[in-house]
Amino acid sequence: MTVPATETLPRISDAEFAERGERLQALVAEEGLDVLLVNSSESDFANVRYLSDYWPVFEFAGVVVPPEGPLALLIGPESETFAVDRSRISRIRKLMEYRESADPEYPDIAVDTYASVFEEAGAPSPRQIGIAGSFSTNWLMLESLREAFPQAELVRADRLLTRLRSIKSEAELDCLRAAFRISEQAIGQILGSLRPGMTELQAVGIAQEAIYERGAEYEGMVQYVLSGPNSRHAISRATDRVLRAGEVVQLNISARVAGYSSGVGRPVVLGKLRPDQREILEFGLDAHHATASWLRAGVTASAVAKRYRAFFSEHGREELYLYGPCHGLGLIEVEPPWMEETSDYPLAENMTFQIDTFVVGPEFGGRWENGARILADGLELFSDMRMEVVEVG
Amino acid sequence: MTVPATETLPRISDAEFAERGERLQALVAEEGLDVLLVNSSESDFANVRYLSDYWPVFEFAGVVVPPEGPLALLIGPESETFAVDRSRISRIRKLMEYRESADPEYPDIAVDTYASVFEEAGAPSPRQIGIAGSFSTNWLMLESLREAFPQAELVRADRLLTRLRSIKSEAELDCLRAAFRISEQAIGQILGSLRPGMTELQAVGIAQEAIYERGAEYEGMVQYVLSGPNSRHAISRATDRVLRAGEVVQLNISARVAGYSSGVGRPVVLGKLRPDQREILEFGLDAHHATASWLRAGVTASAVAKRYRAFFSEHGREELYLYGPCHGLGLIEVEPPWMEETSDYPLAENMTFQIDTFVVGPEFGGRWENGARILADGLELFSDMRMEVVEVG
Repeated sequence: MTVPATETLPRISDAEFAERGERLQALVAEEGLDVLLVNSSESDFANVRYLSDYWPVFEFAGVVVPPEGPLALLIGPESETFAVDRSRISRIRKLMEYRESADPEYPDIAVDTYASVFEEAGAPSPRQIGIAGSFSTNWLMLESLREAFPQAELVRADRLLTRLRSIKSEAELDCLRAAFRISEQAIGQILGSLRPGMTELQAVGIAQEAIYERGAEYEGMVQYVLSGPNSRHAISRATDRVLRAGEVVQLNISARVAGYSSGVGRPVVLGKLRPDQREILEFGLDAHHATASWLRAGVTASAVAKRYRAFFSEHGREELYLYGPCHGLGLIEVEPPWMEETSDYPLAENMTFQIDTFVVGPEFGGRWENGARILADGLELFSDMRMEVVEVG
Repeated sequence: MTVPATETLPRISDAEFAERGERLQALVAEEGLDVLLVNSSESDFANVRYLSDYWPVFEFAGVVVPPEGPLALLIGPESETFAVDRSRISRIRKLMEYRESADPEYPDIAVDTYASVFEEAGAPSPRQIGIAGSFSTNWLMLESLREAFPQAELVRADRLLTRLRSIKSEAELDCLRAAFRISEQAIGQILGSLRPGMTELQAVGIAQEAIYERGAEYEGMVQYVLSGPNSRHAISRATDRVLRAGEVVQLNISARVAGYSSGVGRPVVLGKLRPDQREILEFGLDAHHATASWLRAGVTASAVAKRYRAFFSEHGREELYLYGPCHGLGLIEVEPPWMEETSDYPLAENMTFQIDTFVVGPEFGGRWENGARILADGLELFSDMRMEVVEVG
């Protein structure tokens, strides 16, 4: 490997982190909550990262958000120096409830409690505790909260974070643009190397080196290199399956920049496809371009979803439909809100989505995936390289 | 990249997965539980993977374990084809409680419920529901369980899984040996490339390509390349910090094979260290070898932890002590049981541990980490390469 100068990648300023906290505190006050607790895990990291830039490993993390006064970052007992060097929230407290699942006792480490951190936040006896990050709020945390505050009502408050996170700032858009650029470069690198005899996982290794070399902090999601029948999986993991000539290989290659995740999806072929197989992928491509043409501020999300489904039936291709057509994009490559037939919200400027067009046949699937920003009169695409059925080799 | 033939790596047989299920069912019956629910997440994956080989992405996963009769794998609504191709448990059920945190509604996907899967498991009205994987049992799951079974007592049962998982089979040991071999090879590849001017993350990219090229399925944990002051972090993530001559760079490089995770830790130096700095790392090396010499079946875990701490004070090095000396190793690179001054269990043959020796000075930290299997009269080391203060370049 040569040592390239890492280009200067965008990041989120301290001022923007402070502003996020203040906006959330205004919502906490507006909702009449005595305090809000925001939780995240290593894999479901977005809410705590949005407020603090902190991203746990093994352990959990939380943020205590009172209606006014300083926020506090909650970490597990083992991450103090890491959090001090990384967190944009300066008040950092260690709680046993945020320890790793290996369940250490840490007899030497002094810790705080929910009682002490809520008291410090000016909410010693909360009646209503809002909780965001419900998916990462685990049994240990809940038992401990109920024991410390038996009179308090726990109120699900994920929507407050979704409200803030779904409209992106200029800096967030820059992070997404950089992450998509790196993903496209990594796909270029894979296309130059992909050949029969290689395993799916070896191709993943090429993508990994390519993204880190360009300054990505992590994969944006698990890298998909899914060959033959594995390409039918909506969610999957690459395996040791050996790539064979004539097969579809589904690439969804991703990078994360300053917390913002990209994913560029392309079905490629090792050699030549039969015309009937090529037709399936090209129908997917048409559906993808059609979806892109429907996106603009003011359109109702469910209308896009219904139109997308109708596109399949109008073309006599219902059997290829699985779900779609878009999902929220930002810190996590799949974040709220989704765009489903039940989604009654209007698209708004600076919302960001993955246009995720998945056609699934009996032998293989093909997925075209690009990031997009909603504009008043259309969209900005974050990626658009090689929107064609690429035959490699 | 050349295309090497991936060597044939070990895996766990279907028969061994079936045996795990049967042994767990015997424990469920012994404890008098009506049913056991085992939960995992993408990052805290071990318990469900141990029973099913399934490892979720974005979503959660669970296993329903009745005292007798078939087990059922619980997945989120989006992973059906993935789970069908991968799970060693053939009964697979989709539950909304296991969906991803992006919170889709999936209006087109038919799902099961806790009530339907517990009924199918022969426990339509359980009085006692054991729950293992407490750290991955989230608010949505708990609310749903309490609503479906208001009379049931939820009993924490993590210890049942720890009991099974802590003694490794021959096949598990083979997976660990292979994972450590790949980690050592990746460290060799980094040592050949590491130089001032490269960022920590670029060095991570080299490790990633190296592990995937050799057939690893994933990193065994986040790859640590931590330079200068970052090497003081017990838990951390690599950053875009540029490596400088004369600094310590802490490498903890890891690979996962068939679910089993390795981590090989070496502090290396770019150029030359001052003698007082070198002395700190060499003291850590002595502490590591001493710890290894104390491990054997029958020794009480707390006795090792106390002796380790005494080793620091006897050498007048208490200021370098943070924690230690060992933690469980297996599916997760840090799993129960830990070896702390409060750990009163005896070491047993075929338990596996990371010997994790961390010395933390004011300017940098250094960590020597190797995997080990407990034998009747000592240990088998899974890694031992370059146990010296390596000066690179």
